[in-house]
Amino acid sequence: MKVIITAGGTTEKIDDVRGITNFSTGRLGSLVAEEFSQVKNIEVIYIHGLGAQLPESENIRSIEVESTRDLSSVLEELLIEEEIDLVVHSMAISDYYGSGIAKPDDVEIFLQSDTPKLLTSFWKIFKSGANKKISSKSDDLVIRLSKNPKVIANIKKWSPTTHLVGFKLLVGVSEQELVKVATETLINNQCDFVLANDKALINGDEHVGLLINQSGIVQRFETKQDIAKGLVKITKEEFLK
Amino acid sequence: MKVIITAGGTTEKIDDVRGITNFSTGRLGSLVAEEFSQVKNIEVIYIHGLGAQLPESENIRSIEVESTRDLSSVLEELLIEEEIDLVVHSMAISDYYGSGIAKPDDVEIFLQSDTPKLLTSFWKIFKSGANKKISSKSDDLVIRLSKNPKVIANIKKWSPTTHLVGFKLLVGVSEQELVKVATETLINNQCDFVLANDKALINGDEHVGLLINQSGIVQRFETKQDIAKGLVKITKEEFLK
Repeated sequence: MKVIITAGGTTEKIDDVRGITNFSTGRLGSLVAEEFSQVKNIEVIYIHGLGAQLPESENIRSIEVESTRDLSSVLEELLIEEEIDLVVHSMAISDYYGSGIAKPDDVEIFLQSDTPKLLTSFWKIFKSGANKKISSKSDDLVIRLSKNPKVIANIKKWSPTTHLVGFKLLVGVSEQELVKVATETLINNQCDFVLANDKALINGDEHVGLLINQSGIVQRFETKQDIAKGLVKITKEEFLK
Repeated sequence: MKVIITAGGTTEKIDDVRGITNFSTGRLGSLVAEEFSQVKNIEVIYIHGLGAQLPESENIRSIEVESTRDLSSVLEELLIEEEIDLVVHSMAISDYYGSGIAKPDDVEIFLQSDTPKLLTSFWKIFKSGANKKISSKSDDLVIRLSKNPKVIANIKKWSPTTHLVGFKLLVGVSEQELVKVATETLINNQCDFVLANDKALINGDEHVGLLINQSGIVQRFETKQDIAKGLVKITKEEFLK
């Protein structure tokens, strides 16, 4: 049986030397991968962002990806070409990529021109930053970010029989709000479970996590190790027989 | 005698879970630190960004910094309070930090309002992203980046007697252009030397570097190990007697 774990964060280039990074050490994902690799007959594929922590076991196939679009194409290929039983999608995905850069001078010229002041005309002043290093002479820069494809929403489309555990991270919200938003993630993406967590309740290995399914909270975890062991136990019982 | 090496890249937060990162593994800086730590009577202080490679020697004092402003305050304190003989400033510094975020709706309302179309009014639609996670509901976002203080320009101001090796990284330019820009860095920041390099000529440990001073190219290096050894040799002969 095959399990894919995604971990760490994506990096979206702004230009050739700078990028937008989602902060994630990959520590939790590496523990989950490690835990699954201890189970007999489970092959683990670990897809991780730049600089993410790697699991220690040597019998784990690791694939490094940079951007959200890289992750998307690697996942699509694996899910279509191999039989994957479960995806545990813990990677912090950049919702946006840098789609253009403008200098204040360009903004000023646009604002003072006779061009009708439409959003579509505004976007036209943004230029691509690919394959260069943007000069730092300007006091300010304006960057346009555009939406990346939602990777998690495609997992069941690429492989309807694969089970899916999603992750939802919020910052400093009530538990009620956290469960509400995680439930939306669960339903919108056809997840079997979602691990809901709040950055304000993560500190090193202390890591409050609520595992939810359609009925509500299934289990509450207090540490990264708990989460890793709990996810393996529950998904093994439910899907990996 | 004390030598400070800065290495890796800075991270500037956009919001609580995302940031702008300068790509740099810190590998070259860690080799330079390692090489200096082998020299008798030299104490090495290694200031590095998140996730940067660390030197192996245990007798190196390591300090982790996140943003350019963090780096600036750590350097200022060290240079004012301790006697530092040499700074080798290889860290990839973010020239900009995220100073505000706007949604396309805000831009549209501004463009269609009666407000005079001045740049100063345009900046007012940008809000801080600190201490929250920006919702990803909007199809696009606009981010304002503003200039960070130039750390390298302050080193000689904080400590006029400290010697300084700067680094200049460009992407895919001619050698003539590279030397020209690196010479500007040398003069503007009162560096003793600048290591000029081009990202297009860096590939793992292969790393073309031109060490320049006011007379022009002093030495040419081909690998990271060459650069580390060469920097120690030359600065030891010149400054660390």
